[in-house]
Amino acid sequence: MIKGIGAAAGVAIGKAFVLPAWEWDVPDRQMDKVDLAAEFERLYEGIQTSRTEIEVMKNEVKEAVGEEESSIFDAHLAILEDPVFMSEIRGIIERQYKAAEVAVKEAIDHFVAMFDLLDDEYMKERALDIKDVGNRLLKHLLGTPDITLPADTQPYILVARELSPSQLVHMNPDNVLGMVTMAGGKTSHSAIMARALGIPLVSGLEHKLGTPLKTGDLLVVDGDEGLIYVEPDQEIIDRYTEVAERLQKRKEQLQVLATVEAVTRDGVPFRLAGNISSVKDLEQALKYGAEGAGLFRTEFLYMDRTTFPTEEEQFEIYRQVAEKAGKHSVVIRTLDIGGDKQLEYFELPEEDNPFLGYRAIRISLNSKEMFKTQLTAILRASAFGSLKIMLPMISSLEEVRQAKQILAEAKSDLDERGVVYDNHIPVGVMIEVPAAAAIADLLAKEANFFSIGTNDLVQYVLAVDRMNETIAHMYQPFHPAVLRMLRQAISAALEAGISVSVCGELAGDEKAIPLWLHLGVRDLSMSPQSLLRVKHRILNAVASAGEKVGARCYRLATGTEVEAELTRFAETCIWESS
Amino acid sequence: MIKGIGAAAGVAIGKAFVLPAWEWDVPDRQMDKVDLAAEFERLYEGIQTSRTEIEVMKNEVKEAVGEEESSIFDAHLAILEDPVFMSEIRGIIERQYKAAEVAVKEAIDHFVAMFDLLDDEYMKERALDIKDVGNRLLKHLLGTPDITLPADTQPYILVARELSPSQLVHMNPDNVLGMVTMAGGKTSHSAIMARALGIPLVSGLEHKLGTPLKTGDLLVVDGDEGLIYVEPDQEIIDRYTEVAERLQKRKEQLQVLATVEAVTRDGVPFRLAGNISSVKDLEQALKYGAEGAGLFRTEFLYMDRTTFPTEEEQFEIYRQVAEKAGKHSVVIRTLDIGGDKQLEYFELPEEDNPFLGYRAIRISLNSKEMFKTQLTAILRASAFGSLKIMLPMISSLEEVRQAKQILAEAKSDLDERGVVYDNHIPVGVMIEVPAAAAIADLLAKEANFFSIGTNDLVQYVLAVDRMNETIAHMYQPFHPAVLRMLRQAISAALEAGISVSVCGELAGDEKAIPLWLHLGVRDLSMSPQSLLRVKHRILNAVASAGEKVGARCYRLATGTEVEAELTRFAETCIWESS
Repeated sequence: MIKGIGAAAGVAIGKAFVLPAWEWDVPDRQMDKVDLAAEFERLYEGIQTSRTEIEVMKNEVKEAVGEEESSIFDAHLAILEDPVFMSEIRGIIERQYKAAEVAVKEAIDHFVAMFDLLDDEYMKERALDIKDVGNRLLKHLLGTPDITLPADTQPYILVARELSPSQLVHMNPDNVLGMVTMAGGKTSHSAIMARALGIPLVSGLEHKLGTPLKTGDLLVVDGDEGLIYVEPDQEIIDRYTEVAERLQKRKEQLQVLATVEAVTRDGVPFRLAGNISSVKDLEQALKYGAEGAGLFRTEFLYMDRTTFPTEEEQFEIYRQVAEKAGKHSVVIRTLDIGGDKQLEYFELPEEDNPFLGYRAIRISLNSKEMFKTQLTAILRASAFGSLKIMLPMISSLEEVRQAKQILAEAKSDLDERGVVYDNHIPVGVMIEVPAAAAIADLLAKEANFFSIGTNDLVQYVLAVDRMNETIAHMYQPFHPAVLRMLRQAISAALEAGISVSVCGELAGDEKAIPLWLHLGVRDLSMSPQSLLRVKHRILNAVASAGEKVGARCYRLATGTEVEAELTRFAETCIWESS
Repeated sequence: MIKGIGAAAGVAIGKAFVLPAWEWDVPDRQMDKVDLAAEFERLYEGIQTSRTEIEVMKNEVKEAVGEEESSIFDAHLAILEDPVFMSEIRGIIERQYKAAEVAVKEAIDHFVAMFDLLDDEYMKERALDIKDVGNRLLKHLLGTPDITLPADTQPYILVARELSPSQLVHMNPDNVLGMVTMAGGKTSHSAIMARALGIPLVSGLEHKLGTPLKTGDLLVVDGDEGLIYVEPDQEIIDRYTEVAERLQKRKEQLQVLATVEAVTRDGVPFRLAGNISSVKDLEQALKYGAEGAGLFRTEFLYMDRTTFPTEEEQFEIYRQVAEKAGKHSVVIRTLDIGGDKQLEYFELPEEDNPFLGYRAIRISLNSKEMFKTQLTAILRASAFGSLKIMLPMISSLEEVRQAKQILAEAKSDLDERGVVYDNHIPVGVMIEVPAAAAIADLLAKEANFFSIGTNDLVQYVLAVDRMNETIAHMYQPFHPAVLRMLRQAISAALEAGISVSVCGELAGDEKAIPLWLHLGVRDLSMSPQSLLRVKHRILNAVASAGEKVGARCYRLATGTEVEAELTRFAETCIWESS
């Protein structure tokens, strides 16, 4: 048994397939002066083929996984057009009469060495990207065939030093039971994709294996605990086979709950909605029984484009979403870029601390035309269903007032154009900055509803960037300070008589249900994948007991104690054994 | 009148001296193969001279301004040793037989162009540094004389496109009445140095001047309002002459207050202490009447070195501080690196959001030996005066408990060594993470005192990085959310019967005094330069009136309203006209 990092949950049992590293010998090869033109020709052909290949992969990932994940490849495309990298390659061919593949190899080595010298995490990431793209280019110049994964064999467990996005794309997810990598952690590209594909992944095994894994080794991968077993004995195999079967059975049990109402054993009803980024997401959420969408992230309408989406383009999407949700409502969050989300065509300043920077409503209020276009599109779509507007990153009353002022202007423009819209469209505030929780009573006078974004709230309250692996363990959603901020915001909403929901990751965590019971929250919005699991927990819970547990949590002094208390209660959940 | 950015406060009237740009013509010059060795010789001599020059400047700045400011030059020294930059220069000489100055010029241009392409603020900063160092090297290779500032002339107002730290060093501060730059803002290197030197600076005038300023132009520089007047009429001159004289008179009035006690007109006493970074700072603070030090930043003991300071080295400083403070106490904050503070010999991970990252107590608890050494040195010095230990960036109870555990180990080691120390040395917590304010009642059970670090607290509560110029205006210390967090922490301390002080920048802002009166804070610690100004305000204030103003602030809904209320009260302060 070896302990690594559990980067994607689930359990897998199977034979290892060890992926060889993507590196080739490049024999030094000089040319005659006369061959220069032909060599440039070869280089450009290689670049062209590489570009097409990356674009194809990008679209495949977009289809199979999602738009967000596919954007990984934009960085790769950019490298193929990078003037510095390309002029280095051309320079070596031109001045030293070296073959294109030799020039590419030398340029890769030069840039990787240089970026490594800078000793900057950002640059090291770029170096990895350059390696990936450069090796792809090399592959074409050398005419090397792709490393193929076993196709018609039995499903296997993929083992690699590190997996680049390109390699993951070539993998057929149906054939891959689990994955194991030496490098990487919970926030690597491969971890993100593994979670999206639902494939268990254990990472960070570097220096932890006595002998390297070989193709054919029997492995057990436990992505929940971050464990792998090499050639385990029958007892372990039996144990994990049972776990895998139980997980499969649970999946089947859950699907039948889609049409069941989310009510505790003692009759307390919850409204479970989905967090979505597209019409397709909404469809999936509805399939899992979502009562509308508590968070529609509109960023993805703005990404993978070269200009801002027009009013018409946005209206079309918002209208589809409103119609598809039917009687249920959809909460549309206005553009939330900045932080770690960028648009190619809208330059934002480079920031030392982007999470404490120019983002979300701060950008919208500063780019009034862009913001008004979005609000106008939402207003127009509000005639076709039940829509609500939510403002992200609010930290002061003034921001809400300014946003409402711009909304009023958008309404009066529509009045002039004679376009109908829901004049009473609710305007809500996302509670995710500590300041918003602290002045929730003041905000409740200006807002029609609150939605609590727990991810950012936890991050700011604890001053912990959860993406930062060194301190990721300090990201404690159940920290007493977080619990108190939640109570402050929720009490303010209930006292003011406005509705309040939770839409952060905490909403999709069954352990948190006693907190919602105690605090009086009945609206939760979560990723579609979490809906049935949370509903199952609610159906199994006795609200009066949960409420007591929730109240007890507020008397505990540390996040560890709170989590232990909540875990004990969560474990009382019963799964049918049939 | 032209409006720019007020980057350093104060008023100046005088003639402009316009600094020419630091750029030279470098004629292309080829060499014979045989000259190569001689050319390398020239290059190395140039590097050596440049290095010495930078080291001299660094020491000058350290003496004249401070250790923190002098670290700007470490980046410059590093460039002279940068293998990538230097191999580029050598490569051009070697392969293209170009003269050293031509190679340097080409390398500068190449790197600056490359870093500019990366379109990354960090890289752009590096590009500026490379330009500065490269130009210095060029100067030596070309034998160009230094650009000299008028020496024996009348004091002048320095005008430049941008001022590099090297240029500022060559300036005699006694001769410079004020400064004006086209580029830059409040957070530029020149702004930091101007404020430290007390020279008024207006920046950001690019594209705002019809005709460029000429040497000899009569200027008025208003660093408070960010205004400059070119060839102003007599009325303006008279008005600003009066302002300048008033400022001078106030300075003189203030100095006599050093030995006066800080008590309001109606008898409410305050304890004003200094924020210090060195023994020298403490001496200055005491000269301005400080009652000890409420914040001794120990980072500077760790900077400008190649290894961690030993227990003995630290002890020596802490002992001196303890002895110099006499009957007053000194609050020693344990090492607070990370964020924007780095040590050359202790590698920290590169972070996307360093302010939400691995810093301060998080590092100390993870580097136990280093932490224990510091605690041991403080304990030993505690036998020589009144010392207290303060833990920075606390966000949970567990951290305080862990730190106290390590302190207990340090004590028992000292017991074994038979060394005396203050066994009751108070251990306090810095309240600067929102979580700490939210659980202040729990922390008050573990800590002997609180000190509120308002700078970081405001930053985290509002999710605003104050160094980020795009959103710097959102950094509102008087935001109602901040006021509420302050109240939460202060009430918890008063209820638990532990002492509480404020040591952030807000402590040095006279406008905040009504808040302290209302909340019950009587201990303030601030930069030595602020002590007399704040004391003057306290001596002038009627506590009962201030208390009412403070209470009223808690009924206001926006930071703008609170600041206006406090400003009105601050303006009732009377300055003697004699």
